[in-house]
Amino acid sequence: MNRRGFASDNNSGVHPEIFTALQEANRGHVAAYGEDSYTRQAYKKFKEYFGNNTGIYFVFLGTAANVLGMGAFTRSYHSVICAESAHIHEDECGAPEKFNGIKLLPVETEDGKLTVEGIQKHIKGIGFEHHSQPRIVSITQATELGTIYSQDEVKALADYAHENNMYLHMDGARIANAAVTLEKDFREFTGDAGVDVLSFGGTKNGMMYGEAILFFNDTAKEEFKYIRKQGMQLASKMRFISAQFFRYLSDNLWYETAQHANKMARLLAREAAQIDGIEITRKVEANGVFAKVPPEIIPELQKEFLFYVWDHEQSVVRWMTSFDTTERDIHDFVALIRKHMNKG
Amino acid sequence: MNRRGFASDNNSGVHPEIFTALQEANRGHVAAYGEDSYTRQAYKKFKEYFGNNTGIYFVFLGTAANVLGMGAFTRSYHSVICAESAHIHEDECGAPEKFNGIKLLPVETEDGKLTVEGIQKHIKGIGFEHHSQPRIVSITQATELGTIYSQDEVKALADYAHENNMYLHMDGARIANAAVTLEKDFREFTGDAGVDVLSFGGTKNGMMYGEAILFFNDTAKEEFKYIRKQGMQLASKMRFISAQFFRYLSDNLWYETAQHANKMARLLAREAAQIDGIEITRKVEANGVFAKVPPEIIPELQKEFLFYVWDHEQSVVRWMTSFDTTERDIHDFVALIRKHMNKG
Amino acid sequence: MNRRGFASDNNSGVHPEIFTALQEANRGHVAAYGEDSYTRQAYKKFKEYFGNNTGIYFVFLGTAANVLGMGAFTRSYHSVICAESAHIHEDECGAPEKFNGIKLLPVETEDGKLTVEGIQKHIKGIGFEHHSQPRIVSITQATELGTIYSQDEVKALADYAHENNMYLHMDGARIANAAVTLEKDFREFTGDAGVDVLSFGGTKNGMMYGEAILFFNDTAKEEFKYIRKQGMQLASKMRFISAQFFRYLSDNLWYETAQHANKMARLLAREAAQIDGIEITRKVEANGVFAKVPPEIIPELQKEFLFYVWDHEQSVVRWMTSFDTTERDIHDFVALIRKHMNKG
Amino acid sequence: MNRRGFASDNNSGVHPEIFTALQEANRGHVAAYGEDSYTRQAYKKFKEYFGNNTGIYFVFLGTAANVLGMGAFTRSYHSVICAESAHIHEDECGAPEKFNGIKLLPVETEDGKLTVEGIQKHIKGIGFEHHSQPRIVSITQATELGTIYSQDEVKALADYAHENNMYLHMDGARIANAAVTLEKDFREFTGDAGVDVLSFGGTKNGMMYGEAILFFNDTAKEEFKYIRKQGMQLASKMRFISAQFFRYLSDNLWYETAQHANKMARLLAREAAQIDGIEITRKVEANGVFAKVPPEIIPELQKEFLFYVWDHEQSVVRWMTSFDTTERDIHDFVALIRKHMNKG
Repeated sequence: MNRRGFASDNNSGVHPEIFTALQEANRGHVAAYGEDSYTRQAYKKFKEYFGNNTGIYFVFLGTAANVLGMGAFTRSYHSVICAESAHIHEDECGAPEKFNGIKLLPVETEDGKLTVEGIQKHIKGIGFEHHSQPRIVSITQATELGTIYSQDEVKALADYAHENNMYLHMDGARIANAAVTLEKDFREFTGDAGVDVLSFGGTKNGMMYGEAILFFNDTAKEEFKYIRKQGMQLASKMRFISAQFFRYLSDNLWYETAQHANKMARLLAREAAQIDGIEITRKVEANGVFAKVPPEIIPELQKEFLFYVWDHEQSVVRWMTSFDTTERDIHDFVALIRKHMNKG
Repeated sequence: MNRRGFASDNNSGVHPEIFTALQEANRGHVAAYGEDSYTRQAYKKFKEYFGNNTGIYFVFLGTAANVLGMGAFTRSYHSVICAESAHIHEDECGAPEKFNGIKLLPVETEDGKLTVEGIQKHIKGIGFEHHSQPRIVSITQATELGTIYSQDEVKALADYAHENNMYLHMDGARIANAAVTLEKDFREFTGDAGVDVLSFGGTKNGMMYGEAILFFNDTAKEEFKYIRKQGMQLASKMRFISAQFFRYLSDNLWYETAQHANKMARLLAREAAQIDGIEITRKVEANGVFAKVPPEIIPELQKEFLFYVWDHEQSVVRWMTSFDTTERDIHDFVALIRKHMNKG
Repeated sequence: MNRRGFASDNNSGVHPEIFTALQEANRGHVAAYGEDSYTRQAYKKFKEYFGNNTGIYFVFLGTAANVLGMGAFTRSYHSVICAESAHIHEDECGAPEKFNGIKLLPVETEDGKLTVEGIQKHIKGIGFEHHSQPRIVSITQATELGTIYSQDEVKALADYAHENNMYLHMDGARIANAAVTLEKDFREFTGDAGVDVLSFGGTKNGMMYGEAILFFNDTAKEEFKYIRKQGMQLASKMRFISAQFFRYLSDNLWYETAQHANKMARLLAREAAQIDGIEITRKVEANGVFAKVPPEIIPELQKEFLFYVWDHEQSVVRWMTSFDTTERDIHDFVALIRKHMNKG
Repeated sequence: MNRRGFASDNNSGVHPEIFTALQEANRGHVAAYGEDSYTRQAYKKFKEYFGNNTGIYFVFLGTAANVLGMGAFTRSYHSVICAESAHIHEDECGAPEKFNGIKLLPVETEDGKLTVEGIQKHIKGIGFEHHSQPRIVSITQATELGTIYSQDEVKALADYAHENNMYLHMDGARIANAAVTLEKDFREFTGDAGVDVLSFGGTKNGMMYGEAILFFNDTAKEEFKYIRKQGMQLASKMRFISAQFFRYLSDNLWYETAQHANKMARLLAREAAQIDGIEITRKVEANGVFAKVPPEIIPELQKEFLFYVWDHEQSVVRWMTSFDTTERDIHDFVALIRKHMNKG
């Protein structure tokens, strides 16, 4: 029942330690909407990681963190430059456009990563009222393709953005997986590298729900509370998001879980690569593995382990590992692949 | 620590049985975004209460349930008629207008309840392109003022709405409290009485988070999944909302919790009414008590029990009871009031 | 053919002098979108009336002037306080809410005019994220009910608005009619009295199309050009709006036309009042006359002169005069009324 | 003064015949907002060209025609596929996204024309709630690059769109120029070829202002009047748009003006091509000429004739001809180019 698969880190449940934290927060009455001690403690914890001047706002989910975080810097005549594969462009059903009125300008990439060179074609029409004004560069860390921006790459984009009167937004739905690989503190490749606003994800790495928007820039601070409320993201029983984040950021829990997921992805890639006829198509930098698999065996594998086909034409599948993936899961899955490949 | 007060039913935590349900749902991997067995079971449970033809969509919070539920029936040139005291008008920071583009037409009321007579003044300009077209009548059950629509009152408004080519929306953030008082099944005063779309609340009555939008009308069904996603309300780990609702609707848990909260409100009103100088200003039909209290003692009371002043000019306060309010809480609070009144 | 009636000042055509100005502007090529000498001259003319620091933007129509002018000061979590009878609330099909995302807060009035007292009930929830934040007070001059704010009344509202961190918007679709009655320069009861943004109307007083948004406040200046373009109001052949305004504001043409219309309204009111059974229900301050007329004769009158019933229940009609209304029109119409009244 | 140049067909004025029509419409009072005989006659004229079942709505300008016309078929979770060079993507400051909430999906093209092959990559995620649903294919006729879709090309795109549950929108800002080149009746390559909604332009071909939205599909008809009004595009003195269109479509005026403009473009291209060092970079199919010109002479030419640089890197300029361009204009301009080229 509820067998672990490789479909998504969203298919996993809640880390036991975080569950315990929820339980401990379930005591008596506290003020709603964030005026409680759990939330204050969570803020404090975030500031330990990101600095005292960080603006912190909790929301329910990652799409909202992206949309509202960008909304703090945009008026509707602005545009946002992002990778064509970005979650904000591909997987949010137009929420950024709908809520903020903005235009998204996608850039084709090889590996899901923007470069200064790649975004330059969209820097035009500045000051020309007929043209949506470029305002934000949005990157995903780790990307939707399992790749990671180095600290220098983030900095180069931030510098370019700021030189061009733009802001840098980072979708950090899998930021913990990136931090582990980079062997850097969060702030080194976010606020300190020039990121202006970060969607800090928890749900994909062991939380039940909850995402944080972190501002490293004062522009939006004063009014953001209204944007969040009107954006339908102000949790009444906020303490339960806060308690999760507090625990997640304590005792390196976030690190252990992400490190484990990354390790399992590398293991899976390594093992699968040894099977004749399976090709790992991308470098594995976080917790996603992209593999070319003969189309005829895909449905067979999916009968036992959930996962998604990423590119039907190329027969490339995506396997995501999670904080709760076990070595046994990997070995069972690899054995299954091997069995079906040998049949062919 | 975390003393129970009378500020809001949102200040309470999670009912222990619901917590247990969350724990039991935390097993292995299941498909994200609602394609899981917990969600299917929750849908089934809802259908037992509301009928098999009910369209069911879970979202994170009540504001979203209201905004998106109404959005399923509106285009931006429509208007929504509601009480001036309605949550959608007073307490959602303009989310209905922002997200749906619509106009809200508030109606002054004595007791938070709309009447056919009261809404008629807004039924005008039909077919006239200069005028926002009335499309929805929105009522709250129980109202923000602690009052309740009878089944007949709901039906009268629904009939009038339908005769005028409008729909009836019900904000049921406290629908359980209403059902208990009405001694009716949910469906008798919702779908069967002509309600087209209902925000079915759980958070104020013992859940951690999660609200259901129920459609009793096929108009919106096909496209609503996109509205929810673009509305930033599609939960990835949906099973945890579903498991809560399943438990909430099983073994009459919802009834017990609401019945208890209502009972505590009546007890508080009865006891407080016996104190000289305290006046209960509204009939207590659900779990809210409105009382006129001398302004000078309010801050004294608030030092020990959280609650809000509803009307500063009239010195009227609001006391909300909750599923976890105890008789002891009531007696302690009443004793405190009495102590401060005697001092005066 | 095309008989002049009393339906609306919009039913009239174009003043001959303005037509001539259009013709004179129709020479050769000039830069589009306002980078032409006709537009520069029109700006200069506006500055003569309103001061050199005035921000001037032309749009096509009054609804757009109102919506975009307010949009320069608002974010979507703001609210706008206006009279229940205001054009922005009654007759713009929800354009202010749709385009700006804002909430409108209507105030019931006797005569279409807001007062400080009347708007105070909406100044609440300041700083409270659940509540749309009051940001603009919007008044119409002359009002939809034919009444006029005195300079002091404007100033009182402006002062109150500014003290409460709000702005004052004036819908001046019929501002010329007001200026004539007030015997004041435009700026005395607009910018100098504290108005922050003005919709300056031309169409109802002899222009073909075109409206100006005037800012007396620097807040919005830099970015407004994008708001206008995205608001679908940047005219390509701008010179033809500019040439009209230039002529309209030259040689007191605006004054003559408005003075005449007002005079015709007073004449009509005076003459009609002398007919037994006809009652003039409002003081005539601009170019609108409101009259109680027996319902049975209304269709008879409308066969020969177009006009609208304002209040069916009370059998009150609205008669608008225009720059081209003649004394003969008035006498013919009054004779017709008299004829039908005598029949009864 | 007001020398004719090659900057834009928007820089030209009003055709004398259309001016006369405006003058003739300036008689007495007629009902506002389109309830007048001029408008009825214009509708009739449009139906002669496009068929009796055509839905006809006038607006002020082309951006609005595009935005509102598409808005009639979209909800905010829809996407629109267009060429990267499309006016709706490049030159409307995000109005389509802002007003409709939709996502635009640009396609790179060589010549500004979409092909079935080119748009296929965006037909994905159908029925998948995370993904904006493709709803409209939008093409421009003639394109922004001066090219023209054949009737068959339009039909192929329409068929593909309809097979995929989408609609075909045509931005016809320069539709007359296309019709002349195609030697087809308007309807042959619009409604009859499968176009669902057409922005029919007049301003770039001799009108003062005014654009028509034509629906060849009943989907939007009933509610569109509200969309137009809320979209701030309902003209009060509508007769003046109508009178222009009536004249424009009478006696083949539209044809003569467009034919002339096209002819002048071909002449300019032919003459300029004979100058050493000047290269015509695109086939001239409508009234635009794209030419590679040495960058050092561009400012010299612009001193006497206005035109825009299209591509600074490639030193490609755009020369637009207009209904009022004369052969003399062409010869003078060509002589000027020749003079400066010889200097080099």
